[in-house]
Parts: sequence; C-alpha cells; structure tokens
Amino acid sequence: MASAFCSLCPTPTSLFSSHALIPTLQWRSSSSSRSPPLHISRVLSVETVPLSPSFTWNDVFENSRKEYVPQNSSDLTGFLEKVDRCNRGLEKLGEFIPFVIEEQIVGYIHKGFTKYLRDFNDIFTFSQYGGHVTLNMMLDKPEERTRAVAHVIKILGNKGIIPGIRNELYPVKPSFNAPAFFSIERAAAPYFGLKGYAIHVNGYVERDGQKFLWIGKRSLAKSTYPGKLDHLVAGGLPHGISVCENLVKECEEEAGISKVLADRAIAVGVVSYMDIDRYCFTRDVLFCYDLELPQDFVPTNQDGEVDSFRLIPVAQVANVVRKTSFFKDSCSLVIIDFLFRHGLIRPESPGYLDLYRRLRNGDCS
Amino acid sequence: MASAFCSLCPTPTSLFSSHALIPTLQWRSSSSSRSPPLHISRVLSVETVPLSPSFTWNDVFENSRKEYVPQNSSDLTGFLEKVDRCNRGLEKLGEFIPFVIEEQIVGYIHKGFTKYLRDFNDIFTFSQYGGHVTLNMMLDKPEERTRAVAHVIKILGNKGIIPGIRNELYPVKPSFNAPAFFSIERAAAPYFGLKGYAIHVNGYVERDGQKFLWIGKRSLAKSTYPGKLDHLVAGGLPHGISVCENLVKECEEEAGISKVLADRAIAVGVVSYMDIDRYCFTRDVLFCYDLELPQDFVPTNQDGEVDSFRLIPVAQVANVVRKTSFFKDSCSLVIIDFLFRHGLIRPESPGYLDLYRRLRNGDCS
Repeated sequence: MASAFCSLCPTPTSLFSSHALIPTLQWRSSSSSRSPPLHISRVLSVETVPLSPSFTWNDVFENSRKEYVPQNSSDLTGFLEKVDRCNRGLEKLGEFIPFVIEEQIVGYIHKGFTKYLRDFNDIFTFSQYGGHVTLNMMLDKPEERTRAVAHVIKILGNKGIIPGIRNELYPVKPSFNAPAFFSIERAAAPYFGLKGYAIHVNGYVERDGQKFLWIGKRSLAKSTYPGKLDHLVAGGLPHGISVCENLVKECEEEAGISKVLADRAIAVGVVSYMDIDRYCFTRDVLFCYDLELPQDFVPTNQDGEVDSFRLIPVAQVANVVRKTSFFKDSCSLVIIDFLFRHGLIRPESPGYLDLYRRLRNGDCS
Repeated sequence: MASAFCSLCPTPTSLFSSHALIPTLQWRSSSSSRSPPLHISRVLSVETVPLSPSFTWNDVFENSRKEYVPQNSSDLTGFLEKVDRCNRGLEKLGEFIPFVIEEQIVGYIHKGFTKYLRDFNDIFTFSQYGGHVTLNMMLDKPEERTRAVAHVIKILGNKGIIPGIRNELYPVKPSFNAPAFFSIERAAAPYFGLKGYAIHVNGYVERDGQKFLWIGKRSLAKSTYPGKLDHLVAGGLPHGISVCENLVKECEEEAGISKVLADRAIAVGVVSYMDIDRYCFTRDVLFCYDLELPQDFVPTNQDGEVDSFRLIPVAQVANVVRKTSFFKDSCSLVIIDFLFRHGLIRPESPGYLDLYRRLRNGDCS
C-alpha cells in the first residue's frame, strides 16, 4: 500500500520519515522513577506486551496489510475484543463503595483501597457501616477540599500507591455539567472512580474518496501507555477549561495544529466506557471530533509526548485496531466509532448491532 | 434564507415548486376505509394536530426561520422532547407479557390485548399462570405459523382492532441476526411488541461548507402519519430482504434515486427507541445512512407515498425538529443523530451528554 501513501501527499518522504523527537521527557513525579506496582500490574493485565512496547512502525504496517473487508463476517470480532477490553470487571462493582460529596455520588472507591484513606481520618469520613466515603464536613470550601486531598495523594504518590502523578488537576463532580466540588490530581482519579472527560481528534485526509488517518506513536517517556499508538490529538479535560479550549490547546501542543485549523474540527458525538481493574475504576467520556486536514499538512509534536506520526489509510488502521493491541485502548473505541460513522463497518456484517451497542455501554453523563 | 436556497441550485424554482403527486393511493386493506379507533387514538395522543395535519410548507419555513444557534443553551430542550416522545410509557412494561417462540422472547403483548387472542386457542397458547404467550406447538414450521397468525390478524384487522393493514410481511425474530421463526403483517408488529428494523436516509447537498437536507412531506393518503414531514428516503425492512437491498429499493421508490447513486449512501450508525402506547409496544432499530447528492439532483417520488419535497438548510431543519411536531417522530431521532454527527449540536450546549445518552436508550439488538 506504499503507493497509496505516495500518491496522496506532495512530500511523501517527509510524511514517512521519522518525526521522532528525542525522548527528553522524564516522569514528572519524584515517585515515578520507581516501578509502580499497580501500574505495571494494570499494563500487564491489559496487554500481553511489555511495559515499553517494542513494536515499530514496520510492525504496524505489517499488521495493517491484509485489507479490511467490511462485508467479511469475521471482521468484527477483533473490534468487539477491543470494546470489551475497555469495559472489564463490571461484575466487581460490589467491591466498591460510593464516594459522596454534598450528598451526591462523585465516584467509587475500592473497599481494599480505603485502608490507605483511613489513616487520614481528619480528611476522609466513613459512614457508620462503611457504606460510603465522604470528606470531613469541616472541609466545606473547594480550595480546602482540594488542598486536603492533594496532601493525601502526595503521600500515597510518594509511597507508589498512586503511581504516575502528573501534577494536573481534574474536577470532581457527579456529571459533566455539574459544578466541580473540588479538584484532584489526574493520576488519582481512577482510585476514586471519578468521571473523566477527554477529547479525541480523528485527524484525517481525504483523496479520491479514500480517507487516511494521522496516527501518533506515544513517546517511550510517557508515564501511561508509552510507545503505544494514539490519535493525532487527544487529551484529558483538566479543571477549569472548556471542551473547545482544550481542543485548541491539545491541537497546538500535540500536533502543531493552528487555532484556525483546529476550529474546523467537527464535534461528532461521544464514546464512553467503564473499566474496573483492581483498585482502579475508570469512568471515561470521550468527546470525539473529526478534523479534515489539508493534504500537505504534516503534524509536528510540540510537547515531547509523541514519538512520531504516520498517515495511514483508514482501512489499514482498522486492521491494526482489530488485529493488534498496538493502540492505546481508548483510542480503539474512538476509531471504531469513526469506522461506524464513515461506513467502514456496515449493517451487513453479523455482529454490527452488538458491536454498536457495546460501544455505547458506558455511563455517558 | 431564500437566498441560501437560490444560490445552491442551478434550478431553484424546480426545487421549491411543488412536486406533489396526486394522492392516488388508497388504504390497501378492505378495513382501512373505516376510521380505526386505536390508530386515531394513537395519533391524537402523540400529536396535538388532527389526523391529517393541515400544516403547509409555508408553516414549515415560518418555523424554521429563527436560526438555530448551537451554543444557545436553551436549544436542546426541543430535541430532548422529541426523543422522549419516541420513548414513552416504559413504566408500563409490567402490563405486557412475553411472546415466546422456541423458548426465545420475540416480543411483548399487552395483557389487555390478549383477550383478542384467547379466542384462537388452536393458534395461541397461554402459559399456566398467564406469564407468557406462545404459538400452539403443533405449528412448528415457519409457513404454518405465518399462515395461522395471518388468519388471526385478518380477522382482527377486519374488526378494526388492528388497523392499517399493509399486506407487508415482517420477520419475527428475537434479534436482528437471528433467523426468522415466521413472518407477520407489518401493521400487527407493535401489537405483538416485535422488534422492527428500518432504514432512514439523510439525503443532503453540500455547498460552501453548508449542508442542506432534502425533506419529504408524506402523502395525505398514507395510513400512518399522513401529511407529516419525513426523510428523503425511509422504509421498514420487510421479510427476506437485506438492509442494503432495501436501501436501493426505497431510494428508487421514494425519491427516484438510481442504484448507482444509492450505492454512494454511507452507513453511519443506528438509532433505536422503545415506545409503549396503550396496546402497542414499538421496539424499532433504525439503520441510518448519509447520502450526499449532486447539487442538481431533484427527487421524484415513484410510489405516491410522498406529496412533495423541499431542500432546506440543516440549521433550519433543526429548528423545525425542535420547535414543531411536523416531523414523523422517528425521523426527528435520525435528524438529531445527524446534527450530532455533523457538529450542529455541540459539547458546549448544556444537556449535550444527556440528549446523546437518551438518543441511544433503545434496545439496539
């Protein structure tokens, strides 16, 4: 399929030569130089590849080769596996208790994890029969709550109990449009089962009716999913920034996309998932965007979080999603959604409705 | 907005003059000349307009005028109402009992409606405590089941108990990919709570980045939703025909779209809904397609089911959906899905996630 790339772009060599940045980023937290046990366990349990995946772009192209045939009835199995991988362990919901602020459930905490919080009984309060966790009622201002919980998370981070501290604050709220009760370190969010919101941009180029997706390979220095395949642009929604602002910010940081170009991105819907992995309960809602890019556009990563980019025909991206575990899990969901919306997964395929339903199983609130 | 129409099409006059066909279609069933009481009750309970809505295209344009502003927080309320209108009465699920074939639930029958079936105890069998309905076990071949049930439905049709007989067979099966146990008259499907499948085609034209949707106005002679607004092409999936074949067939019949053009339609996903209205339990899955049409395309109805067509800017169609009840209910859902996928409903609008979730509440199997 090399000819397909070459015919697309005015400067094909530049597109397929390595745009690798020397991985200068180090783990940002002082605790991150250790091997955080929970994080490793998570990666190993999800993937059968090492912590730093050794696959290369050549491996990606090798696995993308067998053309994806939408009518082939066996084709959806690989997609179903990816959706299921993002929605594991819901039978273990009973192991969690609600995390309640001002009488609203904002998250869920694993009963096993509560032992780390019980040491801080001036901050966390447990209901009489252990049915839920809340914050000490004396902490009634957002800033006080943020500061108190940050103190706990710093200690748990230093002990490696909450690994991969990013120094990025996430809002704590029961649903997207509710005001935040306070904010919390991003890496801690799954340990409190908080809802997380992110944007994912399908950056694509169209020529002669065929679509090509820009795919990034994450830096090996990333604390999460190092070396995995990723969207051209994707990022969690930090505290105090709108979806729209985050889109523009991430477009600039991750791919050197100007605001003028980013403003062309079209909001196309939402994918959500709920995943339980030991102490972590991830409840993520991904705002999906399609951004059609000029044919001569070449992304340039600005923040060192991306190793390199490649432009790949969508049908081949589909093969990589269904045949490998190269993609960061959540990206697979957004790409499957893209394949649905752009007619690459069709009602003629048995399992079409099943895959569609399971793709939308999460708590989209 | 007249200039928007005029600038779009080479022959604007032809697009906005009436393409009305003289309504030659009569009700196909001998029972249809009566006023079927249940049907009237359904229409009156759903809409606040008469059985034959008297609104004209002028009313449509009048209501579409105030431009839809995606960021306006109040804008989603009208959409939410339309989604809720398609998903009524689920608190009455307890009034229904399962309709079971070969130990699989294929539908749900209202306890009140079962009195009409008990007269046919050589065909319908009730479990000991009335927990479910099934067919007489002697009826073990699809043809025998089809013939026996058709006999019952013919009698109930003649009595006006099942109005609007169409002489079109629907498959009876527990889910889309399961083989059909037998088939049944389409008008009877909601009385047996069967799953129904249909295709809906968003036929659109794009110019200078603005999209225009082709909208049909149903013939006043239609037995269901006469005079209401409809998609360019939409139709239930009859027995023994694939989604793809139905798409081509309906494109030809409803809008004079050639197979070559119909083959360009892109499958973009699914919308489903579940609605209980007295004895009727509708459980529909709508396969949605986007079909970009040439700018000089003009639809011509072939089967007399459409009164006339108009090409309307999508933003104005959005206004008609949210401000009026002019559209056939299920069409509103598919148009709302179109607005989501094409960025006309945006994450910045409060209620975005709520609307998205409720749009996908149905049983998509």
